[in-house]
Amino acid sequence: MATAADVDAMWRAIELAARGLGSTSPNPVVGCVITDASGEIVGEGYHQRAGGPHAEVHALAAAGDRARGATAYVTLEPCNHTGRTGPCSQALIDAGISRVVYAVGDPNPQATGGADTLRAAGIKAETGILTAEAAEGNTVWLTSVRLGRPYVTWKYAATLDGRIAAADGTSRWISSAESRADVHRLRAEADAVVVGSGTARADDPHLAVRGIEGATQPLRVVVDTHATAVKPGARVLDEAAPTLIAVAEDAQTELADAEVVRLPRSAAGLDIPALLAALQERGVRHVLLEGGPTLAGAFVAAGAVDRVVAYLAPVLLGEGPAALTGAGITTITEALRLDVTETVRIGADFRITATPNFQKER
Amino acid sequence: MATAADVDAMWRAIELAARGLGSTSPNPVVGCVITDASGEIVGEGYHQRAGGPHAEVHALAAAGDRARGATAYVTLEPCNHTGRTGPCSQALIDAGISRVVYAVGDPNPQATGGADTLRAAGIKAETGILTAEAAEGNTVWLTSVRLGRPYVTWKYAATLDGRIAAADGTSRWISSAESRADVHRLRAEADAVVVGSGTARADDPHLAVRGIEGATQPLRVVVDTHATAVKPGARVLDEAAPTLIAVAEDAQTELADAEVVRLPRSAAGLDIPALLAALQERGVRHVLLEGGPTLAGAFVAAGAVDRVVAYLAPVLLGEGPAALTGAGITTITEALRLDVTETVRIGADFRITATPNFQKER
Repeated sequence: MATAADVDAMWRAIELAARGLGSTSPNPVVGCVITDASGEIVGEGYHQRAGGPHAEVHALAAAGDRARGATAYVTLEPCNHTGRTGPCSQALIDAGISRVVYAVGDPNPQATGGADTLRAAGIKAETGILTAEAAEGNTVWLTSVRLGRPYVTWKYAATLDGRIAAADGTSRWISSAESRADVHRLRAEADAVVVGSGTARADDPHLAVRGIEGATQPLRVVVDTHATAVKPGARVLDEAAPTLIAVAEDAQTELADAEVVRLPRSAAGLDIPALLAALQERGVRHVLLEGGPTLAGAFVAAGAVDRVVAYLAPVLLGEGPAALTGAGITTITEALRLDVTETVRIGADFRITATPNFQKER
Repeated sequence: MATAADVDAMWRAIELAARGLGSTSPNPVVGCVITDASGEIVGEGYHQRAGGPHAEVHALAAAGDRARGATAYVTLEPCNHTGRTGPCSQALIDAGISRVVYAVGDPNPQATGGADTLRAAGIKAETGILTAEAAEGNTVWLTSVRLGRPYVTWKYAATLDGRIAAADGTSRWISSAESRADVHRLRAEADAVVVGSGTARADDPHLAVRGIEGATQPLRVVVDTHATAVKPGARVLDEAAPTLIAVAEDAQTELADAEVVRLPRSAAGLDIPALLAALQERGVRHVLLEGGPTLAGAFVAAGAVDRVVAYLAPVLLGEGPAALTGAGITTITEALRLDVTETVRIGADFRITATPNFQKER
């Protein structure tokens, strides 16, 4: 039975977990709170980055001797395997924890079984508390485990009539300064930022995170099928963050300043599932797709958009490229319908966050 | 000096005025409240339709003898001219009103001077109370007086990527049932509903108000430059509402069921200022422009959109016609920037109401 104190402690663990967003991949975000018999918090921790200690280890270190006989609240089932760090289930046993409450079971076949290990050692292991809330905090990682590919957030900024640039290609600035700053937050939460050759040619984008202290820089990825868009001296090739150029298997390229990955072609460009598999292999669990319209269309057509973040500016253009093209949708019944999860004013703009609803018809 | 009682009474008058929206053109909406010496409301009224009594006359009739020595609150300066009804300033004098408070001065050169007439008769005539609020309630009429043409509200329904139909032309339904019902409210508030030949051909729209009891039907207007889109038997030619077909001066047409107006051509179709002048002449003060994209572009290019009401559905298409085209905007600095005045969720959609800001640059 969960008490109010259990719920409070788990909320705190969920809060702690969120601090790791953007820096734990390929691992999940995890938070841990340890309370003594009187309910007092004696240790807290969260997983800060892959290769570093897990949340439970941080919390146990903070609790010290007070962990003996205490309760540990963890947002995810304690791991059971020895990776770059030892198994957390064993660490909890060794510290003398008497009860473990976890919100979400570990779906990762390599790590699951922690609860069984705890129980075999005589520790009470319970679950079912704030499960949905903790799962939402780990949506990216849980989705990537389920689908075997990175979670994809597609971000775009457009006018109210759906244009991302004027007829002459000018686009600075459609969205407000506040929206542009907010995109750096999205980048900081992602493991990779992906653009296509059209964007690389038109904007020479930098794609690194600016203005967020302590942010982990994402992998910058340019999908440059013909290996013609990214030229030596491109801003994306500087030292600010690692860079990966994805080209077709048969493309000619001699770029010295970036890693190059060769991928099979599709009808429209590069094969999107192959691209995502290559990123998954590199530890990427969250892709921020920043466009342009053709690449976004290829992702939508591949069923590989998990979340849409649209910055809509109260502006009309009447001409110029649309935010999305070539998604393979030809009639209204095939439209990609979305569930809106959040709407906020941001500067003069609207930020609309939504997830595909593949069941919905009107 | 305005007291709290003055403010309360004027708010009530503004509320009453709004009841006339959609049925008073070419007149403004006006509300009137009469209070006795103790502050009690003894009469209320609003202008219900052109040709009927003005607000003051309704309120005076309701007050009867209790109007003597009372205060009259009117949202607009009482008129001074004899139109289809007698001047309200004289009616207030005759009824023995001792004080008149009005929110907005009458900008109509034919009707102004009411306050002077009242003062000459020894009545206290005051203004400056809730002026902005009352003016907002009369935006349509005040704008039409200032510009000498009808106020234009452009309404469209589009996907998040700015499409009004899929690649094959299907569009039923992009927006939710709630949004579609809301459009009938917009029609009921307008004096004319205008569409272009593309919409007439693609949708055979009816354009009348449905589902709103007591609504005044708007004039249905089809801009059919070549007189080829509206054919005998078109739904817009039924008896539900009056209809006007606007064609080029040299077009051949023999439509028996609708009034036809011949207008000069412009580069893109019909001359928009000439169209608006023809509507103004027919008593239209509020045009609801329902599209499609080409006609909307012509209105934007002519500087003849005063308000935008966008119904945005959380849907992506990636192909299909855009909401706006041919607005004459070629580069980002020429973009039409808007001030958002209201945003609401309506069914699954967003309704964004905005007005052009011709000064704004980013």
